[in-house]
Amino acid sequence: MDIRRLADFAAKVNIAFPTAEEYGGLSGFYDWGIRGSQLKKNVKDVWWRYFVERKDFVVGLDGSIVTHPRVWEASGHVEEFHDPITRCRSCGRTFRADHLIEDLTGKSVEGASLEEINKILSDLRCPACGGELEPATYFNLMFETRVGPYGGITSYLRPETAQLIFADFPRLYIGNRKRIPFAVAQMGKAYRNEISPRNFLFRLREFEQMEIEFFFDPEDDACPFYDDVKDYEVLTLTVEDQENGRDGEVRRVSEVVGDYPGREWMVYWVVESLRFLELVGVDMGRVRIRQQLPDERAHYSMDTWDVEFRFDDLGWKEIEGVAHRSDYDLSRHAKYSGNDKYRIKREDGTEFVPWVIEPSFGVERVILSILYSSYREDEKRVWLSFKPWVAPVQVAVFPLVSKDGLPEKATKIRDLLRRFFRVEYDEKGSIGKRYRRQDEVGTPYAVTVDYQTLEDNTVTVRERDSMAQERVGVDDLVDYLLERMSW
Amino acid sequence: MDIRRLADFAAKVNIAFPTAEEYGGLSGFYDWGIRGSQLKKNVKDVWWRYFVERKDFVVGLDGSIVTHPRVWEASGHVEEFHDPITRCRSCGRTFRADHLIEDLTGKSVEGASLEEINKILSDLRCPACGGELEPATYFNLMFETRVGPYGGITSYLRPETAQLIFADFPRLYIGNRKRIPFAVAQMGKAYRNEISPRNFLFRLREFEQMEIEFFFDPEDDACPFYDDVKDYEVLTLTVEDQENGRDGEVRRVSEVVGDYPGREWMVYWVVESLRFLELVGVDMGRVRIRQQLPDERAHYSMDTWDVEFRFDDLGWKEIEGVAHRSDYDLSRHAKYSGNDKYRIKREDGTEFVPWVIEPSFGVERVILSILYSSYREDEKRVWLSFKPWVAPVQVAVFPLVSKDGLPEKATKIRDLLRRFFRVEYDEKGSIGKRYRRQDEVGTPYAVTVDYQTLEDNTVTVRERDSMAQERVGVDDLVDYLLERMSW
Repeated sequence: MDIRRLADFAAKVNIAFPTAEEYGGLSGFYDWGIRGSQLKKNVKDVWWRYFVERKDFVVGLDGSIVTHPRVWEASGHVEEFHDPITRCRSCGRTFRADHLIEDLTGKSVEGASLEEINKILSDLRCPACGGELEPATYFNLMFETRVGPYGGITSYLRPETAQLIFADFPRLYIGNRKRIPFAVAQMGKAYRNEISPRNFLFRLREFEQMEIEFFFDPEDDACPFYDDVKDYEVLTLTVEDQENGRDGEVRRVSEVVGDYPGREWMVYWVVESLRFLELVGVDMGRVRIRQQLPDERAHYSMDTWDVEFRFDDLGWKEIEGVAHRSDYDLSRHAKYSGNDKYRIKREDGTEFVPWVIEPSFGVERVILSILYSSYREDEKRVWLSFKPWVAPVQVAVFPLVSKDGLPEKATKIRDLLRRFFRVEYDEKGSIGKRYRRQDEVGTPYAVTVDYQTLEDNTVTVRERDSMAQERVGVDDLVDYLLERMSW
Repeated sequence: MDIRRLADFAAKVNIAFPTAEEYGGLSGFYDWGIRGSQLKKNVKDVWWRYFVERKDFVVGLDGSIVTHPRVWEASGHVEEFHDPITRCRSCGRTFRADHLIEDLTGKSVEGASLEEINKILSDLRCPACGGELEPATYFNLMFETRVGPYGGITSYLRPETAQLIFADFPRLYIGNRKRIPFAVAQMGKAYRNEISPRNFLFRLREFEQMEIEFFFDPEDDACPFYDDVKDYEVLTLTVEDQENGRDGEVRRVSEVVGDYPGREWMVYWVVESLRFLELVGVDMGRVRIRQQLPDERAHYSMDTWDVEFRFDDLGWKEIEGVAHRSDYDLSRHAKYSGNDKYRIKREDGTEFVPWVIEPSFGVERVILSILYSSYREDEKRVWLSFKPWVAPVQVAVFPLVSKDGLPEKATKIRDLLRRFFRVEYDEKGSIGKRYRRQDEVGTPYAVTVDYQTLEDNTVTVRERDSMAQERVGVDDLVDYLLERMSW
């Protein structure tokens, strides 16, 4: 599978397509269609249930997207959230300068200053027309807007969901009855005015995140669930592996995570992230965790592990990151807000600013990995091997023919199943065609009502991947499907 | 209940509070906290299941928030989505001019021109300082931002979700296998740069909508579900009632909706909207439908019915609107995009542009109505009488005391229930205090594990509103609760 073919397929089956297509689209913005809106909702719902509803110590937040500018001063985004940009003096094309240098010279300029970048850039020419390039300048990636009449005040579309959790910490800590450790989860839109959005859903300007900020006391950092995660194994690539040019190997997560306050929790969040990704159908045979190199890491991060997926054509790419952020975020908000609500008291009376571990998922990247993991084709059909809880439609219901009372019986079964599952009823076309249509959007089960149903109240249940068919009594149908669809 | 007290209560129990409070907040923007994020998700989830997952002819869309400017030229928003604004020359305060006139003179200037407004305004003075007022100008309510580097292109944060459905109609129609009638539902954020945001969640700058666009053929407009809705009665206020100063009366919806193509569907959508509102816990004793007066209606609308809720302090206010929009929207996009994909073919070979009926809910307004409907207090306690499917927590689990094996037994029951419900475990404080905490956030059931549980495997189930307690076997507990929590 390559990304162009996948984008075409996704548009064809109404998963996602460029926004405002009839007006030429808007680069970096996609709309999620009939199948995609449900698919995205399902992935987010599973995430929310897995991390928020099923864990006692995790609570939720749903914050504003347009946000007070001081929040982004405190976070450092106003000052530092930028990429170097250059433009061709002849053809006017714009480029992200560091990417251009890497493309043309093969050299990485990660972490280089603008001065260093411009030194290299002065020897290069526009790859499109050969023209001269303007010196690079920094371009802040936050989208600005103005709130209120007569000019209003400059505000920003949030470049990440995380920061709202930090800013709101005082309310959330009180709302959690001042207990620590605890975590706050948030999912929703975030915005980055990327210079070159690309690769379908991979690099967007409008996207969604699912982020957790876990707050703990560095002097009391034992994880009560550590036994449950310490033996989990996965393909790992450490800093040492990378520095020695090694491929990495399968190891326990607990073996590779460094020795610092919150170590056990770091293992916990990496492992729980991987379990979630497996649950929603990411092929674990294509997943590794990679430790960020010191010059990739934000300066305040003690350690960051990226969860990477091997895309057939794009190679290994980050779909989630778990960052150890120490007390950086809350300390900044304490400083910028000028109040002490970001500090909390220990039982012994001493005060401290909580430390943070952050698992951060890109929703579209997770879905892209699911699509790469699920896409199947053979001579006869194309199908998506979605997990039943992720599939837009869970059960299709067909009357074999549109007469002799079969539609009436089938719609009754549809109504019965609809109380528990996402159901689609279809009576148009041959049974074979109806199966193909459902395969293409990843529906795991199809129930067919035929003449025998009218006699003995049984139906045929056909499973998508194996195409195996089984005869099931209508009275047992809900239990039969529930058993296969619960997690 | 008045809106100020409710806002304080909502902040206290972590439903919603001003965004970036520690930085002074941003007028018209709220964050949803520990309880609120779950509450809002639940209301949206029920809406999506009610209207999308459970109806064969309704599909979903999840479109971009930052949107191509041509979409808003086509919709008319660039030209016409504005309010008259004025400013005091002395103190600099800004006002929405039409509201100011209404407040100071009691006269409605709905539909008046800028010239007419300014004629009245020239006789008025600033209500705060008595200063002179600047002539009113129009202020466009869309938030602007710029997409791409070096200035980029001006785009808009969508002022409604509806328009994306219209713009994407060609893809959605194909994705629905070119069948009509059908409807497309979308929920998500929308933005209006209100001059005076106010009344807590009622008039926000960032808010969420749940909108449906129903497409039909005006020459083939029978509704197959009409029998199911035609006898539904509700308090109605027609144009005639309003013109004659009458209060309105309880009538069948089907009696008051006018005679035009799509009449039966108009009745269907009004009734289904009311059923949804009742399902999520809006007190139907405080609901009426009011027909918009001709000068309130958009010029392209044949008829619009507002669903209004009687707030104790704010009076009757719109929480949803059902608008008959004829072929206006798709015709505009056909014109502005310059293509014919917005026209479809009848079986007889003639072409037409589908007509539209639009039920449009404001999420925050629905939740505000639920809060007004659910808030209860007596001498002993404060509680929210939420429906179980809307309640942030559905079941609380308590060990009577934190010793003698009760916490172990209780956490087992918590884990069992968590597979089906949103569960909160609490062992801190007296049982009475724990009940109060759950009452305050609307948890419908509390399960207490006591010494008897260890003997006979039964627990006490306490219902929130009646405070009645019942002894239930642990083996029957899931079924007992499922029965009371399904809809």
